Amino acid sequence: MIPRYSRPEMVAVWDAQTRFRIWFEIEAHACDALAEIGVIPKASAKAIWDKAGHVAFDVARVDEIEKVTKHDVIAFLTHLAEFIGEDSRFVHQGMTSSDVLDTCLAVQLARASDLLLADIDALLAALKRRAFEHKLTPTIGRSHGIHAEPVTFGLKLAQAHAEFARARERLVNARKEIATCAISGAVGTFANIDSRVEAHVAAKLGLTVEPASTQIIPRDRHAMFFATLGVIASSMERLATEIRHLQRTEVLEVEEFFSEGQKGSSAMPHKRNPVLTENVTGLARLVRGMALPAMENVALWHERDISHSSVERMIAPDATVTLDFALNRLTGVIDKLLVYPANMKKNLDRLGGLIHSQRVLLALTQKGVSREDAYSLVQRNAMPVWRGEGDFLTLLKSDGDVAKALSAAELEDLFDLGYHLKNIDIIFDRVFGEA
Amino acid sequence: MIPRYSRPEMVAVWDAQTRFRIWFEIEAHACDALAEIGVIPKASAKAIWDKAGHVAFDVARVDEIEKVTKHDVIAFLTHLAEFIGEDSRFVHQGMTSSDVLDTCLAVQLARASDLLLADIDALLAALKRRAFEHKLTPTIGRSHGIHAEPVTFGLKLAQAHAEFARARERLVNARKEIATCAISGAVGTFANIDSRVEAHVAAKLGLTVEPASTQIIPRDRHAMFFATLGVIASSMERLATEIRHLQRTEVLEVEEFFSEGQKGSSAMPHKRNPVLTENVTGLARLVRGMALPAMENVALWHERDISHSSVERMIAPDATVTLDFALNRLTGVIDKLLVYPANMKKNLDRLGGLIHSQRVLLALTQKGVSREDAYSLVQRNAMPVWRGEGDFLTLLKSDGDVAKALSAAELEDLFDLGYHLKNIDIIFDRVFGEA
Amino acid sequence: MIPRYSRPEMVAVWDAQTRFRIWFEIEAHACDALAEIGVIPKASAKAIWDKAGHVAFDVARVDEIEKVTKHDVIAFLTHLAEFIGEDSRFVHQGMTSSDVLDTCLAVQLARASDLLLADIDALLAALKRRAFEHKLTPTIGRSHGIHAEPVTFGLKLAQAHAEFARARERLVNARKEIATCAISGAVGTFANIDSRVEAHVAAKLGLTVEPASTQIIPRDRHAMFFATLGVIASSMERLATEIRHLQRTEVLEVEEFFSEGQKGSSAMPHKRNPVLTENVTGLARLVRGMALPAMENVALWHERDISHSSVERMIAPDATVTLDFALNRLTGVIDKLLVYPANMKKNLDRLGGLIHSQRVLLALTQKGVSREDAYSLVQRNAMPVWRGEGDFLTLLKSDGDVAKALSAAELEDLFDLGYHLKNIDIIFDRVFGEA
Amino acid sequence: MIPRYSRPEMVAVWDAQTRFRIWFEIEAHACDALAEIGVIPKASAKAIWDKAGHVAFDVARVDEIEKVTKHDVIAFLTHLAEFIGEDSRFVHQGMTSSDVLDTCLAVQLARASDLLLADIDALLAALKRRAFEHKLTPTIGRSHGIHAEPVTFGLKLAQAHAEFARARERLVNARKEIATCAISGAVGTFANIDSRVEAHVAAKLGLTVEPASTQIIPRDRHAMFFATLGVIASSMERLATEIRHLQRTEVLEVEEFFSEGQKGSSAMPHKRNPVLTENVTGLARLVRGMALPAMENVALWHERDISHSSVERMIAPDATVTLDFALNRLTGVIDKLLVYPANMKKNLDRLGGLIHSQRVLLALTQKGVSREDAYSLVQRNAMPVWRGEGDFLTLLKSDGDVAKALSAAELEDLFDLGYHLKNIDIIFDRVFGEA
Repeated sequence: MIPRYSRPEMVAVWDAQTRFRIWFEIEAHACDALAEIGVIPKASAKAIWDKAGHVAFDVARVDEIEKVTKHDVIAFLTHLAEFIGEDSRFVHQGMTSSDVLDTCLAVQLARASDLLLADIDALLAALKRRAFEHKLTPTIGRSHGIHAEPVTFGLKLAQAHAEFARARERLVNARKEIATCAISGAVGTFANIDSRVEAHVAAKLGLTVEPASTQIIPRDRHAMFFATLGVIASSMERLATEIRHLQRTEVLEVEEFFSEGQKGSSAMPHKRNPVLTENVTGLARLVRGMALPAMENVALWHERDISHSSVERMIAPDATVTLDFALNRLTGVIDKLLVYPANMKKNLDRLGGLIHSQRVLLALTQKGVSREDAYSLVQRNAMPVWRGEGDFLTLLKSDGDVAKALSAAELEDLFDLGYHLKNIDIIFDRVFGEA
Repeated sequence: MIPRYSRPEMVAVWDAQTRFRIWFEIEAHACDALAEIGVIPKASAKAIWDKAGHVAFDVARVDEIEKVTKHDVIAFLTHLAEFIGEDSRFVHQGMTSSDVLDTCLAVQLARASDLLLADIDALLAALKRRAFEHKLTPTIGRSHGIHAEPVTFGLKLAQAHAEFARARERLVNARKEIATCAISGAVGTFANIDSRVEAHVAAKLGLTVEPASTQIIPRDRHAMFFATLGVIASSMERLATEIRHLQRTEVLEVEEFFSEGQKGSSAMPHKRNPVLTENVTGLARLVRGMALPAMENVALWHERDISHSSVERMIAPDATVTLDFALNRLTGVIDKLLVYPANMKKNLDRLGGLIHSQRVLLALTQKGVSREDAYSLVQRNAMPVWRGEGDFLTLLKSDGDVAKALSAAELEDLFDLGYHLKNIDIIFDRVFGEA
Repeated sequence: MIPRYSRPEMVAVWDAQTRFRIWFEIEAHACDALAEIGVIPKASAKAIWDKAGHVAFDVARVDEIEKVTKHDVIAFLTHLAEFIGEDSRFVHQGMTSSDVLDTCLAVQLARASDLLLADIDALLAALKRRAFEHKLTPTIGRSHGIHAEPVTFGLKLAQAHAEFARARERLVNARKEIATCAISGAVGTFANIDSRVEAHVAAKLGLTVEPASTQIIPRDRHAMFFATLGVIASSMERLATEIRHLQRTEVLEVEEFFSEGQKGSSAMPHKRNPVLTENVTGLARLVRGMALPAMENVALWHERDISHSSVERMIAPDATVTLDFALNRLTGVIDKLLVYPANMKKNLDRLGGLIHSQRVLLALTQKGVSREDAYSLVQRNAMPVWRGEGDFLTLLKSDGDVAKALSAAELEDLFDLGYHLKNIDIIFDRVFGEA
Repeated sequence: MIPRYSRPEMVAVWDAQTRFRIWFEIEAHACDALAEIGVIPKASAKAIWDKAGHVAFDVARVDEIEKVTKHDVIAFLTHLAEFIGEDSRFVHQGMTSSDVLDTCLAVQLARASDLLLADIDALLAALKRRAFEHKLTPTIGRSHGIHAEPVTFGLKLAQAHAEFARARERLVNARKEIATCAISGAVGTFANIDSRVEAHVAAKLGLTVEPASTQIIPRDRHAMFFATLGVIASSMERLATEIRHLQRTEVLEVEEFFSEGQKGSSAMPHKRNPVLTENVTGLARLVRGMALPAMENVALWHERDISHSSVERMIAPDATVTLDFALNRLTGVIDKLLVYPANMKKNLDRLGGLIHSQRVLLALTQKGVSREDAYSLVQRNAMPVWRGEGDFLTLLKSDGDVAKALSAAELEDLFDLGYHLKNIDIIFDRVFGEA
């Protein structure tokens, strides 16, 4: 997590004050439940809220205590006792540090997910708006980087919208995976803590109850969460790559917005580089790479070891902060993207009509020419065009074998751009729902 | 995919004959739809099924043709024409190779998922049976590899059951991700093919319709699929690791079944090694590693490039065949696992009662001792036991400060094993549902 | 390892017959050493070579025996005894299976490395030939996909040559890492086997002695080997990506060779797609992904566990076969690459002279204009050109503030292409050595 | 990079002040060279050092400027001009930002390597000291977690020493990979900058000259660097895992040092957990995971894109800081490791002599028993011992078939521990050199 690629809302989820506040709430809610079932005095449970419910914890003080105890939760509880006094002996009764740590992580990851879901919603909104704006802006579809057949620029954005709608659904699933509460004691048996405490805390924090914890919440949940972020990052890389391609000098169908004071290059002042989407590409690599240590975290030893902890201290903030930043950056790019329909048209025409070859092929077979023969006829007229020696329609008209099957008028009809765009509505309806 | 780690059912999903059969069905169903909407003659659509619906395709012949055309689908269509004759010109009308290839991959991955789901069901059944068998078999719970507090061996298996129930749910989601059909033509615009063809083929093959394809089905779907397999593999590694730990010489609480003729070591004939779970551990690494190229496959260029193809030719069979094999192996291990309750009991007693220290701590605080003081009292009696200098209960009884708070009888009560197992039913009910 | 992406030489390294032959040689050389130091009869050592030195082992027979013993080396030794008879009792004396398996893997990986080194040499030769051919073929250099300043196409290939020369050096290091021999017995102590046996076998097989084995050769060596292959694969992806970019329709500066019978697309016969380099891109992802399980293999338990074995059975053949195939494919692409200098020239001129802006900027500062002012002068003349509103040189000439610093003649001099190519020799000398 | 897992020396390599200082030195050395060859006035080059050679740069000021320019190097140069005044127009002549950024990264990575090399040296020293201390401390060797044959604890550490000596050598190679200087201008052609400038700056900064840069230093170098760190991390995981295993309650042959005030668990005060090595295990996963984005960084587009930048801003500090911290932590663990030879002896005896079975097997074959028969004899006496039904030596003595080949005295000799340790010196000599 570095400032350059961070937004304050997500950073706040991971700061020490937030963490201590969540720890406190877990302990205080647990005390309420313990009081309710008669394990500790109700007055003590109330006192805990009264005395520490609204204080700011002293992060430096906790760090100082931890230097001695070498244990973060004990350090916090010691600090907490400084506010609460004698009643502090009822805090953390029958609980183990992981009850606090893992439930806190669940709250933080759930909050992070909510921010990311909002990010995706913003991206979806931008994609939708621009997709409709360019629903019928013709542009060439490319496979292998080679011109294929016409599509529209709006269609490209609609396809991205469909992809990020899937990303959203995956994130909703991933959020469910990690939003569980475990307060089950030292080895998850509820030997020293009543399971009603867990149920109460879970309900208060908006979590579900972890069905079978082992001191800790099982890490397959977190692995699935971070793997999902990795897949979402990969979709971001795809959209970013598309824009980078379209901005290359020879293509120049779109450009990232270029603000007034901005300098593209210290050496070449004319340059307008797709640096935002290149940046998103790099950030996607980072998030993707974090899925692996998360998967390696699953096979902890027996009821738990603590090797996952350092991994999560780094990747939980880093993956969510980075993804949040990158999603916002990508949304900004889409939102303000400069689109050049005239250049799209120019590129569409670049191949002298060859992009209609598939349609000619199909028309020939429909006139009874065998597929193999039709293929040959098309290819022998396509190759000179490819070499810059003529225009495809003209060549086809003057090919005697073609003429046997298709009249000049019929051939001309085959070069109509509208033919390719006639079913765009079907796809838009699928992606955005019918108007 | 190597024979040693393969099972025939899953291998069959990926053989050439299966693939060609699915290709044929896609083409033939598409012809039915084309005939229905009047693009090709109904008699021709019927003839295609009649002439090739029941033939075995000649894999070597297709390979031979492909050597010339350097294109696998064209090679297949050429071979198909050898069966169908003249009507073959109606096959593949307006379609592109990817319509066939990607829809076929969807069918194969869906079939593979069905086998994997059955594998997980078998594992769940084995875990459930053994979990109930050992529901109340006491064993020590360990954190950091160090004895913590008692659990039961059945509880460990119940926790694994909960984890694989999650794995199953994830796989159901992953199957949905990839079970889509795309027949949308060269750049996904339905310019040359009616979208009703796609709907028909999808219905016939049990797939949903891909809402927005770009010649190909978008690869975020496959990335999510393989990432999910990687997470499942990680859960398998966890269970395998648990068994490996429990089989170590010093622990020996369980052993993999050891058949009569089997030799553990060419040099040390007494050795009975947990080789099956070690193998599962290695196989898990392989499957996990395949998630990454799958994620890198997402950012294809523009409407598509073909860089994903070689990746999928390798990882689609390898990941599913390996996971299928490993799941079966792990199920066999659980099913026939030799469990040694007597050794579990012996290990439980190994620490001279220290495993009850948390309970003593709690009892002291409940008697009004401050948490800090209670901790000190427990620790000063625990340390000699840890050094092998005495028994925890005896030392506590003779500690004057402890005696002020807890009588000998009260202390003895705190060393009751049943205390730790009293809530196992709650967890079993959560995991397996109430009886 | 799938036939489509395999070459027979590398496949042969990994077939069962080769493996058994190497196993035999290890055992037979070990017997020679054992005989030399008097542990077994010299006649027996000789008999072993005589009776089995030239036989073909029966792979199916070994498999059959292994089904009973569940141990591959014992199965082989049993089969070997069928050739050797009574003297077979002297085979494998004091050795453990891993002595054979790991030393064999070392031989196979070393042979694989030799093939890969030859592959890289061929690629280097192709790069060198084409680099000199196009040493002075001007083309535009691009940063961020945007035109920057002129380079030559030969320079691009020289840069690739330098990168693959590094790849070669890394592979030489990686080969050294894995080319070690361990014959140290059950836990690496030479308790049952004289260390002179290891020294003899190592010398005979062209390996160094493993200084400290633990039954097995430590897996950090193999991790380094496969990580190195991953880095080499990444360099291949870079070169492949360059070609894919240069072949895009709008750029079209190079094309992969396109054979006569080849069909680019089942639907669009005019298409000539960079499918070979796209394929290399995908294969690179596969090889890179294999570095991770290799790294996870390092932390085996104690003196060894066998979890690495399944990983290596798959990735050792897969990574080397795939890389060998991909290197050959890439060499073929470079060797036969169609290069279009006319298109390169056309693209160079596309920006109306803007690519000379950095030079103008520099000239202005050398005439005493402050860097900030010079930057502004250049940018205000560059922007209209960028928008297609004029030619850079003309605009500069008519800018009064520019004219104060640079005369028309001076400006014209700044637009000389030769200026950019004057130091190509320096780089060629560095890369290829001075002529 | 988080404070908890950071050491100040390595953090300092990556702070903004260090970076600006290196940037300044690159620019100032370049000016010296430019003055030397007559491009700029010598007095100006001198003035640059005089005016800014000893200042502290204002990091906040540079950030502020960057907010406008959106370009970090231009922002720095603007700030630098505030110190230098008019001569600042000679700074950065003919250079491009990457000349500064990439050469600076080379300096930082080289410095980081030097710290890491010192870390490894410290670890090697600790391993050597403890290895000699326990050179002849017998302990059981384990394969598959199962007792195999005796080794010594010193041998385990010697093996680790050999592994980290390899790690050191790899890091030396990796350092060479990245310690190159590129000052070659906008697209690496030296069009605007004399190659002697690069040579001068390289020499001054202790770098070699990059033979063929493309505005940037090629990223295969960095990929190799980070992949090497990943392999080193994996070796650290191996040693950490060994200690974690040896500290488990049932084994307890070693323990991490446990300081006085430290609390093992908030709930179980008797617990002494191997938390440092568990932490190292987690940190290893993090470093390993960073190799992948580094490899994905290699295939930048054409002469460069900037997608690598965000990746390196994160992983360059994170990987080096984390590895530095983990190496130091691991060294501390080894240095202060509590070793329990008595427990090692107890574990050695645990199997009733079975660990000598291989030696008995060998002795039988040397007496003329066939390997197959010897194996059966050993196995039939081993199995009861394994089941806890007797002592291996006693059983062998009373086995009539064994007695035919080996006398009681001969059998007793086979159970001598010294037999296994007799060649430890050979391995120590290999690892540490002869005394």
